[in-house]
Amino acid sequence: MSERIPVVEKILSANDRLAGENRARIDAAGVFSINVMASPGAGKTSLIERTVRALCPKYRIGMINGDILTSLDAERAAAAGAVAIQINTGGDCHLDAVMLQPALDQIGLENLDLLIVENVGNLICPAEFRLGTHKNVIVASIPEGDDKPHKYPAMYRGADVLILNKIDLLPYVTFRMDFFSQGVAALNPGLTQFDLSCRTGEGLDAWYGWLEARLSGEKVPDA
Amino acid sequence: MSERIPVVEKILSANDRLAGENRARIDAAGVFSINVMASPGAGKTSLIERTVRALCPKYRIGMINGDILTSLDAERAAAAGAVAIQINTGGDCHLDAVMLQPALDQIGLENLDLLIVENVGNLICPAEFRLGTHKNVIVASIPEGDDKPHKYPAMYRGADVLILNKIDLLPYVTFRMDFFSQGVAALNPGLTQFDLSCRTGEGLDAWYGWLEARLSGEKVPDA
Repeated sequence: MSERIPVVEKILSANDRLAGENRARIDAAGVFSINVMASPGAGKTSLIERTVRALCPKYRIGMINGDILTSLDAERAAAAGAVAIQINTGGDCHLDAVMLQPALDQIGLENLDLLIVENVGNLICPAEFRLGTHKNVIVASIPEGDDKPHKYPAMYRGADVLILNKIDLLPYVTFRMDFFSQGVAALNPGLTQFDLSCRTGEGLDAWYGWLEARLSGEKVPDA
Repeated sequence: MSERIPVVEKILSANDRLAGENRARIDAAGVFSINVMASPGAGKTSLIERTVRALCPKYRIGMINGDILTSLDAERAAAAGAVAIQINTGGDCHLDAVMLQPALDQIGLENLDLLIVENVGNLICPAEFRLGTHKNVIVASIPEGDDKPHKYPAMYRGADVLILNKIDLLPYVTFRMDFFSQGVAALNPGLTQFDLSCRTGEGLDAWYGWLEARLSGEKVPDA
Protein backbone atom coordinates (compact mmCIF):
# COMPACT_ATOMS: atom_id res chain seq x y z
CA MET A 1 0.00 0.00 0.00
CA SER A 2 2.84 2.43 0.77
CA GLU A 3 3.92 2.52 -2.89
CA ARG A 4 0.48 3.24 -4.08
CA ILE A 5 -0.39 6.71 -2.89
CA PRO A 6 2.43 8.63 -4.64
CA VAL A 7 1.47 7.07 -7.98
CA VAL A 8 -2.16 8.06 -7.58
CA GLU A 9 -1.16 11.60 -6.66
CA LYS A 10 0.99 11.92 -9.73
CA ILE A 11 -1.86 10.84 -12.01
CA LEU A 12 -4.22 13.32 -10.38
CA SER A 13 -1.80 16.19 -10.68
CA ALA A 14 -1.21 15.52 -14.40
CA ASN A 15 -4.98 15.36 -14.78
CA ASP A 16 -5.40 18.71 -13.01
CA ARG A 17 -2.92 20.32 -15.37
CA LEU A 18 -4.80 19.02 -18.42
CA ALA A 19 -8.11 20.06 -16.86
CA GLY A 20 -6.67 23.56 -16.62
CA GLU A 21 -5.86 23.47 -20.35
CA ASN A 22 -9.40 22.32 -21.15
CA ARG A 23 -10.83 25.13 -19.05
CA ALA A 24 -8.73 27.71 -20.87
CA ARG A 25 -10.09 26.48 -24.23
CA ILE A 26 -13.68 26.49 -23.00
CA ASP A 27 -13.30 29.97 -21.53
CA ALA A 28 -11.64 31.31 -24.67
CA ALA A 29 -14.72 30.21 -26.65
CA GLY A 30 -17.04 31.93 -24.17
CA VAL A 31 -18.82 28.65 -23.38
CA PHE A 32 -20.40 27.73 -20.02
CA SER A 33 -19.82 24.07 -19.16
CA ILE A 34 -21.07 21.48 -16.71
CA ASN A 35 -19.92 17.95 -15.77
CA VAL A 36 -22.97 15.78 -15.01
CA MET A 37 -22.25 12.84 -12.71
CA ALA A 38 -24.46 10.18 -11.10
CA SER A 39 -24.80 6.49 -10.45
CA PRO A 40 -26.17 4.38 -13.32
CA GLY A 41 -29.85 5.03 -13.87
CA ALA A 42 -30.25 8.20 -11.79
CA GLY A 43 -31.39 10.02 -14.91
CA LYS A 44 -28.41 11.95 -16.30
CA THR A 45 -29.42 11.37 -19.91
CA SER A 46 -33.09 12.15 -19.30
CA LEU A 47 -32.10 15.41 -17.60
CA ILE A 48 -29.81 16.34 -20.49
CA GLU A 49 -32.44 15.40 -23.08
CA ARG A 50 -35.05 17.58 -21.34
CA THR A 51 -32.58 20.45 -20.95
CA VAL A 52 -31.54 20.37 -24.59
CA ARG A 53 -35.18 20.33 -25.75
CA ALA A 54 -36.02 23.28 -23.49
CA LEU A 55 -33.04 25.51 -24.30
CA CYS A 56 -32.44 24.77 -28.02
CA PRO A 57 -32.42 26.67 -30.33
CA LYS A 58 -32.23 29.73 -28.05
CA TYR A 59 -28.82 28.46 -26.95
CA ARG A 60 -26.40 26.32 -28.95
CA ILE A 61 -25.65 23.21 -26.92
CA GLY A 62 -22.90 20.61 -27.25
CA MET A 63 -22.91 17.32 -25.37
CA ILE A 64 -19.97 15.02 -24.76
CA ASN A 65 -21.01 11.62 -23.45
CA GLY A 66 -18.73 9.19 -21.68
CA ASP A 67 -19.78 5.56 -21.59
CA ILE A 68 -18.07 2.21 -21.37
CA LEU A 69 -19.85 1.07 -24.51
CA THR A 70 -22.65 2.12 -26.90
CA SER A 71 -23.66 5.57 -28.11
CA LEU A 72 -27.25 5.31 -26.83
CA ASP A 73 -26.99 8.43 -24.68
CA ALA A 74 -25.30 10.62 -27.27
CA GLU A 75 -28.01 9.60 -29.77
CA ARG A 76 -30.70 10.75 -27.35
CA ALA A 77 -29.01 14.14 -26.89
CA ALA A 78 -28.50 14.53 -30.65
CA ALA A 79 -32.15 13.72 -31.31
CA ALA A 80 -33.06 16.47 -28.84
CA GLY A 81 -31.03 19.02 -30.77
CA ALA A 82 -27.50 19.03 -29.36
CA VAL A 83 -24.21 18.56 -31.17
CA ALA A 84 -23.23 15.26 -29.58
CA ILE A 85 -19.89 13.45 -29.34
CA GLN A 86 -19.48 10.00 -27.85
CA ILE A 87 -16.40 8.90 -25.92
CA ASN A 88 -16.31 5.15 -25.32
CA THR A 89 -13.94 4.55 -22.41
CA GLY A 90 -13.71 0.84 -23.25
CA GLY A 91 -13.97 -0.18 -19.60
CA ASP A 92 -12.68 2.86 -17.73
CA CYS A 93 -15.02 3.86 -14.96
CA HIS A 94 -14.74 7.65 -15.34
CA LEU A 95 -13.82 10.40 -17.77
CA ASP A 96 -10.59 12.28 -17.27
CA ALA A 97 -9.22 15.50 -18.71
CA VAL A 98 -7.17 13.85 -21.45
CA MET A 99 -10.14 11.85 -22.76
CA LEU A 100 -11.99 15.12 -23.19
CA GLN A 101 -9.37 16.69 -25.47
CA PRO A 102 -10.19 14.99 -28.81
CA ALA A 103 -13.89 15.59 -28.14
CA LEU A 104 -13.20 19.30 -27.56
CA ASP A 105 -11.27 19.32 -30.86
CA GLN A 106 -14.26 17.92 -32.72
CA ILE A 107 -17.25 19.57 -31.11
CA GLY A 108 -16.67 23.10 -32.43
CA LEU A 109 -16.58 25.08 -29.19
CA GLU A 110 -16.69 28.38 -31.07
CA ASN A 111 -20.24 27.54 -32.19
CA LEU A 112 -21.57 26.71 -28.72
CA ASP A 113 -23.03 28.53 -25.72
CA LEU A 114 -23.33 25.55 -23.38
CA LEU A 115 -21.25 22.38 -23.14
CA ILE A 116 -22.73 19.47 -21.20
CA VAL A 117 -20.40 16.59 -20.35
CA GLU A 118 -22.19 13.42 -19.25
CA ASN A 119 -19.75 11.34 -17.21
CA VAL A 120 -19.72 7.54 -16.87
CA GLY A 121 -22.44 6.24 -14.53
CA ASN A 122 -20.52 5.82 -11.29
CA LEU A 123 -20.91 7.49 -7.90
CA ILE A 124 -17.25 7.05 -6.93
CA CYS A 125 -14.41 7.47 -9.42
CA PRO A 126 -15.59 10.45 -11.53
CA ALA A 127 -15.38 12.62 -8.39
CA GLU A 128 -11.58 12.27 -8.43
CA PHE A 129 -10.96 13.59 -11.94
CA ARG A 130 -11.50 17.22 -12.83
CA LEU A 131 -12.31 17.75 -16.50
CA GLY A 132 -11.99 21.51 -16.77
CA THR A 133 -15.72 22.23 -16.80
CA HIS A 134 -17.11 25.11 -14.74
CA LYS A 135 -19.59 23.32 -12.51
CA ASN A 136 -20.12 19.79 -11.21
CA VAL A 137 -23.76 18.73 -11.32
CA ILE A 138 -24.67 15.54 -9.53
CA VAL A 139 -27.94 13.75 -10.13
CA ALA A 140 -29.40 11.70 -7.29
CA SER A 141 -32.74 9.92 -7.56
CA ILE A 142 -35.45 8.94 -5.10
CA PRO A 143 -35.39 5.15 -5.73
CA GLU A 144 -31.61 5.06 -5.14
CA GLY A 145 -32.29 5.65 -1.48
CA ASP A 146 -31.78 8.33 1.14
CA ASP A 147 -28.42 7.02 2.40
CA LYS A 148 -26.33 7.87 -0.66
CA PRO A 149 -24.73 11.13 0.59
CA HIS A 150 -23.67 9.27 3.73
CA LYS A 151 -22.08 6.47 1.72
CA TYR A 152 -20.55 8.31 -1.26
CA PRO A 153 -19.17 11.48 0.34
CA ALA A 154 -16.58 12.55 -2.27
CA MET A 155 -19.19 12.98 -4.99
CA TYR A 156 -21.42 15.13 -2.78
CA ARG A 157 -18.52 17.13 -1.38
CA GLY A 158 -17.36 18.15 -4.85
CA ALA A 159 -20.77 19.08 -6.26
CA ASP A 160 -21.80 22.63 -7.19
CA VAL A 161 -25.41 21.67 -7.91
CA LEU A 162 -27.47 18.71 -6.76
CA ILE A 163 -30.42 17.49 -8.81
CA LEU A 164 -32.77 15.19 -6.90
CA ASN A 165 -34.62 13.39 -9.70
CA LYS A 166 -37.64 11.05 -9.85
CA ILE A 167 -39.61 12.87 -7.14
CA ASP A 168 -42.73 11.42 -8.81
CA LEU A 169 -41.75 8.08 -7.21
CA LEU A 170 -41.85 9.44 -3.63
CA PRO A 171 -45.28 7.89 -2.93
CA TYR A 172 -44.05 4.43 -3.90
CA VAL A 173 -40.71 4.08 -2.09
CA THR A 174 -39.34 4.78 1.37
CA PHE A 175 -37.20 7.91 1.24
CA ARG A 176 -36.52 9.94 4.38
CA MET A 177 -35.91 13.43 3.00
CA ASP A 178 -34.53 14.56 6.38
CA PHE A 179 -31.90 11.83 6.46
CA PHE A 180 -30.87 12.59 2.87
CA SER A 181 -30.65 16.34 3.55
CA GLN A 182 -28.65 15.85 6.75
CA GLY A 183 -26.09 13.86 4.77
CA VAL A 184 -25.84 16.52 2.10
CA ALA A 185 -25.62 19.39 4.60
CA ALA A 186 -22.79 17.71 6.51
CA LEU A 187 -20.67 17.41 3.36
CA ASN A 188 -21.62 20.49 1.40
CA PRO A 189 -23.57 23.08 3.40
CA GLY A 190 -25.75 25.37 1.32
CA LEU A 191 -25.44 23.24 -1.83
CA THR A 192 -27.87 24.44 -4.51
CA GLN A 193 -30.51 21.72 -4.95
CA PHE A 194 -33.32 21.18 -7.45
CA ASP A 195 -35.97 18.57 -6.71
CA LEU A 196 -37.58 17.49 -9.97
CA SER A 197 -38.93 14.73 -12.16
CA CYS A 198 -37.64 14.29 -15.69
CA ARG A 199 -40.61 12.01 -16.27
CA THR A 200 -43.41 14.44 -15.35
CA GLY A 201 -41.50 17.68 -15.89
CA GLU A 202 -42.21 18.91 -12.35
CA GLY A 203 -39.48 21.19 -11.01
CA LEU A 204 -37.49 21.45 -14.22
CA ASP A 205 -38.13 25.18 -14.74
CA ALA A 206 -36.05 26.14 -11.72
CA TRP A 207 -33.12 24.12 -13.08
CA TYR A 208 -33.45 25.73 -16.54
CA GLY A 209 -33.54 29.10 -14.79
CA TRP A 210 -30.28 28.38 -13.01
CA LEU A 211 -28.61 27.44 -16.30
CA GLU A 212 -30.05 30.39 -18.22
CA ALA A 213 -28.83 32.85 -15.60
CA ARG A 214 -25.30 31.60 -16.30
CA LEU A 215 -25.76 31.49 -20.08
CA SER A 216 -27.09 35.03 -20.29
CA GLY A 217 -23.92 36.33 -18.63
CA GLU A 218 -25.92 37.61 -15.65
CA LYS A 219 -23.86 38.34 -12.56
CA VAL A 220 -24.89 35.47 -10.29
CA PRO A 221 -23.40 34.37 -7.00
CA ASP A 222 -21.19 31.30 -7.34
CA ALA A 223 -23.47 28.29 -6.86
CA MET B 1 -1.31 4.25 -22.67
CA SER B 2 1.06 1.53 -23.85
CA GLU B 3 2.64 1.21 -20.38
CA ARG B 4 -0.66 0.86 -18.69
CA ILE B 5 -2.04 -2.50 -19.73
CA PRO B 6 0.78 -4.69 -18.36
CA VAL B 7 0.48 -3.05 -14.94
CA VAL B 8 -3.25 -3.69 -14.79
CA GLU B 9 -2.75 -7.29 -15.84
CA LYS B 10 -0.19 -7.84 -13.09
CA ILE B 11 -2.56 -6.51 -10.42
CA LEU B 12 -5.36 -8.72 -11.68
CA SER B 13 -3.24 -11.82 -11.71
CA ALA B 14 -2.05 -11.24 -8.11
CA ASN B 15 -5.70 -10.73 -7.21
CA ASP B 16 -6.70 -14.00 -8.88
CA ARG B 17 -4.07 -15.87 -6.87
CA LEU B 18 -5.36 -14.41 -3.60
CA ALA B 19 -8.94 -15.12 -4.67
CA GLY B 20 -7.90 -18.75 -5.08
CA GLU B 21 -6.56 -18.75 -1.51
CA ASN B 22 -9.83 -17.26 -0.23
CA ARG B 23 -11.81 -19.92 -2.09
CA ALA B 24 -9.73 -22.70 -0.56
CA ARG B 25 -10.46 -21.37 2.95
CA ILE B 26 -14.18 -21.02 2.25
CA ASP B 27 -14.34 -24.51 0.75
CA ALA B 28 -12.39 -26.02 3.65
CA ALA B 29 -15.02 -24.64 6.03
CA GLY B 30 -17.84 -26.12 3.92
CA VAL B 31 -19.40 -22.69 3.37
CA PHE B 32 -21.34 -21.59 0.25
CA SER B 33 -20.55 -18.00 -0.70
CA ILE B 34 -21.87 -15.28 -2.98
CA ASN B 35 -20.55 -11.88 -4.09
CA VAL B 36 -23.44 -9.42 -4.44
CA MET B 37 -22.79 -6.54 -6.84
CA ALA B 38 -24.92 -3.68 -8.14
CA SER B 39 -25.00 0.02 -8.76
CA PRO B 40 -25.74 2.25 -5.74
CA GLY B 41 -29.34 1.94 -4.67
CA ALA B 42 -30.36 -1.15 -6.65
CA GLY B 43 -31.22 -2.89 -3.38
CA LYS B 44 -28.25 -5.09 -2.41
CA THR B 45 -28.68 -4.43 1.29
CA SER B 46 -32.45 -4.87 1.21
CA LEU B 47 -32.03 -8.19 -0.59
CA ILE B 48 -29.46 -9.36 1.96
CA GLU B 49 -31.60 -8.18 4.89
CA ARG B 50 -34.62 -10.10 3.55
CA THR B 51 -32.52 -13.19 2.84
CA VAL B 52 -30.97 -13.24 6.31
CA ARG B 53 -34.38 -12.87 7.98
CA ALA B 54 -35.82 -15.68 5.85
CA LEU B 55 -32.97 -18.19 6.26
CA CYS B 56 -31.78 -17.54 9.86
CA PRO B 57 -31.64 -19.44 12.16
CA LYS B 58 -32.05 -22.49 9.90
CA TYR B 59 -28.73 -21.55 8.31
CA ARG B 60 -25.86 -19.67 9.92
CA ILE B 61 -25.11 -16.63 7.80
CA GLY B 62 -22.11 -14.33 7.72
CA MET B 63 -22.06 -11.04 5.84
CA ILE B 64 -19.04 -9.01 4.80
CA ASN B 65 -19.91 -5.54 3.63
CA GLY B 66 -17.69 -3.31 1.52
CA ASP B 67 -18.38 0.41 1.55
CA ILE B 68 -16.41 3.56 1.07
CA LEU B 69 -17.60 4.84 4.43
CA THR B 70 -20.13 4.05 7.20
CA SER B 71 -21.29 0.71 8.57
CA LEU B 72 -24.98 1.33 7.82
CA ASP B 73 -25.35 -1.79 5.67
CA ALA B 74 -23.51 -4.15 8.01
CA GLU B 75 -25.72 -2.89 10.85
CA ARG B 76 -28.84 -3.76 8.85
CA ALA B 77 -27.56 -7.30 8.17
CA ALA B 78 -26.56 -7.75 11.82
CA ALA B 79 -29.99 -6.60 12.99
CA ALA B 80 -31.50 -9.23 10.69
CA GLY B 81 -29.47 -11.98 12.36
CA ALA B 82 -26.18 -12.32 10.44
CA VAL B 83 -22.64 -12.18 11.76
CA ALA B 84 -21.58 -8.98 10.02
CA ILE B 85 -18.17 -7.51 9.31
CA GLN B 86 -17.63 -4.09 7.76
CA ILE B 87 -14.77 -3.27 5.38
CA ASN B 88 -14.41 0.45 4.75
CA THR B 89 -12.42 0.86 1.54
CA GLY B 90 -11.74 4.52 2.31
CA GLY B 91 -12.39 5.58 -1.27
CA ASP B 92 -11.67 2.44 -3.29
CA CYS B 93 -14.47 1.68 -5.69
CA HIS B 94 -14.50 -2.12 -5.32
CA LEU B 95 -13.52 -4.95 -3.02
CA ASP B 96 -10.58 -7.13 -3.96
CA ALA B 97 -9.33 -10.48 -2.72
CA VAL B 98 -6.76 -9.05 -0.30
CA MET B 99 -9.33 -6.79 1.41
CA LEU B 100 -11.40 -9.87 2.11
CA GLN B 101 -8.65 -11.69 4.01
CA PRO B 102 -8.83 -9.95 7.41
CA ALA B 103 -12.62 -10.19 7.27
CA LEU B 104 -12.38 -13.94 6.63
CA ASP B 105 -10.00 -14.18 9.63
CA GLN B 106 -12.56 -12.50 11.88
CA ILE B 107 -15.88 -13.86 10.72
CA GLY B 108 -15.48 -17.43 11.98
CA LEU B 109 -16.03 -19.38 8.76
CA GLU B 110 -16.19 -22.66 10.69
CA ASN B 111 -19.46 -21.50 12.28
CA LEU B 112 -21.17 -20.52 9.03
CA ASP B 113 -23.22 -22.18 6.28
CA LEU B 114 -23.55 -19.17 3.99
CA LEU B 115 -21.24 -16.22 3.43
CA ILE B 116 -22.68 -13.16 1.69
CA VAL B 117 -20.24 -10.50 0.48
CA GLU B 118 -21.84 -7.18 -0.35
CA ASN B 119 -19.54 -5.33 -2.73
CA VAL B 120 -19.18 -1.55 -3.11
CA GLY B 121 -22.08 0.04 -5.04
CA ASN B 122 -20.60 0.28 -8.53
CA LEU B 123 -21.61 -1.33 -11.81
CA ILE B 124 -18.11 -1.23 -13.31
CA CYS B 125 -14.99 -1.92 -11.25
CA PRO B 126 -16.15 -4.80 -8.96
CA ALA B 127 -16.60 -6.95 -12.09
CA GLU B 128 -12.81 -6.97 -12.59
CA PHE B 129 -11.83 -8.37 -9.19
CA ARG B 130 -12.60 -11.95 -8.20
CA LEU B 131 -12.92 -12.40 -4.45
CA GLY B 132 -12.92 -16.20 -4.19
CA THR B 133 -16.67 -16.55 -3.63
CA HIS B 134 -18.61 -19.28 -5.46
CA LYS B 135 -21.18 -17.23 -7.34
CA ASN B 136 -21.56 -13.67 -8.57
CA VAL B 137 -25.02 -12.26 -7.96
CA ILE B 138 -25.88 -8.99 -9.61
CA VAL B 139 -28.83 -6.88 -8.58
CA ALA B 140 -30.48 -4.69 -11.19
CA SER B 141 -33.55 -2.59 -10.48
CA ILE B 142 -36.48 -1.35 -12.53
CA PRO B 143 -35.97 2.42 -11.95
CA GLU B 144 -32.32 2.14 -13.06
CA GLY B 145 -33.56 1.64 -16.59
CA ASP B 146 -33.68 -1.05 -19.23
CA ASP B 147 -30.42 -0.06 -20.95
CA LYS B 148 -28.02 -1.13 -18.21
CA PRO B 149 -26.93 -4.52 -19.66
CA HIS B 150 -26.15 -2.74 -22.93
CA LYS B 151 -24.04 -0.11 -21.19
CA TYR B 152 -22.27 -2.12 -18.44
CA PRO B 153 -21.44 -5.38 -20.19
CA ALA B 154 -18.64 -6.73 -17.98
CA MET B 155 -20.86 -6.92 -14.92
CA TYR B 156 -23.59 -8.83 -16.76
CA ARG B 157 -21.12 -11.09 -18.55
CA GLY B 158 -19.58 -12.26 -15.27
CA ALA B 159 -22.83 -12.86 -13.39
CA ASP B 160 -24.06 -16.31 -12.29
CA VAL B 161 -27.41 -15.01 -11.07
CA LEU B 162 -29.33 -11.85 -11.95
CA ILE B 163 -31.83 -10.37 -9.51
CA LEU B 164 -34.19 -7.84 -11.08
CA ASN B 165 -35.44 -5.89 -8.07
CA LYS B 166 -38.18 -3.27 -7.52
CA ILE B 167 -40.68 -4.87 -9.90
CA ASP B 168 -43.38 -3.15 -7.82
CA LEU B 169 -42.30 0.09 -9.55
CA LEU B 170 -43.05 -1.23 -13.07
CA PRO B 171 -46.39 0.64 -13.28
CA TYR B 172 -44.70 3.97 -12.53
CA VAL B 173 -41.62 4.01 -14.80
CA THR B 174 -40.83 3.21 -18.42
CA PHE B 175 -38.99 -0.11 -18.57
CA ARG B 176 -38.96 -2.18 -21.75
CA MET B 177 -38.51 -5.72 -20.46
CA ASP B 178 -37.71 -6.97 -23.98
CA PHE B 179 -34.87 -4.49 -24.45
CA PHE B 180 -33.43 -5.37 -21.05
CA SER B 181 -33.68 -9.11 -21.72
CA GLN B 182 -32.11 -8.80 -25.18
CA GLY B 183 -29.12 -7.07 -23.60
CA VAL B 184 -28.76 -9.78 -20.96
CA ALA B 185 -29.16 -12.63 -23.45
CA ALA B 186 -26.49 -11.22 -25.76
CA LEU B 187 -23.93 -11.14 -22.93
CA ASN B 188 -24.88 -14.12 -20.83
CA PRO B 189 -27.33 -16.51 -22.52
CA GLY B 190 -29.41 -18.59 -20.14
CA LEU B 191 -28.46 -16.52 -17.08
CA THR B 192 -30.59 -17.51 -14.08
CA GLN B 193 -32.85 -14.55 -13.29
CA PHE B 194 -35.23 -13.78 -10.43
CA ASP B 195 -37.68 -10.89 -10.79
CA LEU B 196 -38.72 -9.70 -7.35
CA SER B 197 -39.48 -6.83 -5.01
CA CYS B 198 -37.66 -6.54 -1.70
CA ARG B 199 -40.27 -3.98 -0.72
CA THR B 200 -43.39 -6.11 -1.22
CA GLY B 201 -41.75 -9.54 -0.94
CA GLU B 202 -43.07 -10.67 -4.33
CA GLY B 203 -40.79 -13.20 -6.03
CA LEU B 204 -38.39 -13.67 -3.11
CA ASP B 205 -39.31 -17.33 -2.49
CA ALA B 206 -37.78 -18.46 -5.77
CA TRP B 207 -34.50 -16.75 -4.84
CA TYR B 208 -34.51 -18.32 -1.37
CA GLY B 209 -35.17 -21.66 -3.05
CA TRP B 210 -32.12 -21.26 -5.29
CA LEU B 211 -29.93 -20.49 -2.26
CA GLU B 212 -31.37 -23.31 -0.14
CA ALA B 213 -30.77 -25.85 -2.89
CA ARG B 214 -27.07 -24.96 -2.69
CA LEU B 215 -26.99 -24.82 1.11
CA SER B 216 -28.59 -28.22 1.53
CA GLY B 217 -25.85 -29.79 -0.55
CA GLU B 218 -28.37 -30.87 -3.20
CA LYS B 219 -26.83 -31.77 -6.55
CA VAL B 220 -27.91 -28.82 -8.65
CA PRO B 221 -26.79 -27.85 -12.13
CA ASP B 222 -24.26 -25.02 -12.15
CA ALA B 223 -26.27 -21.80 -12.33
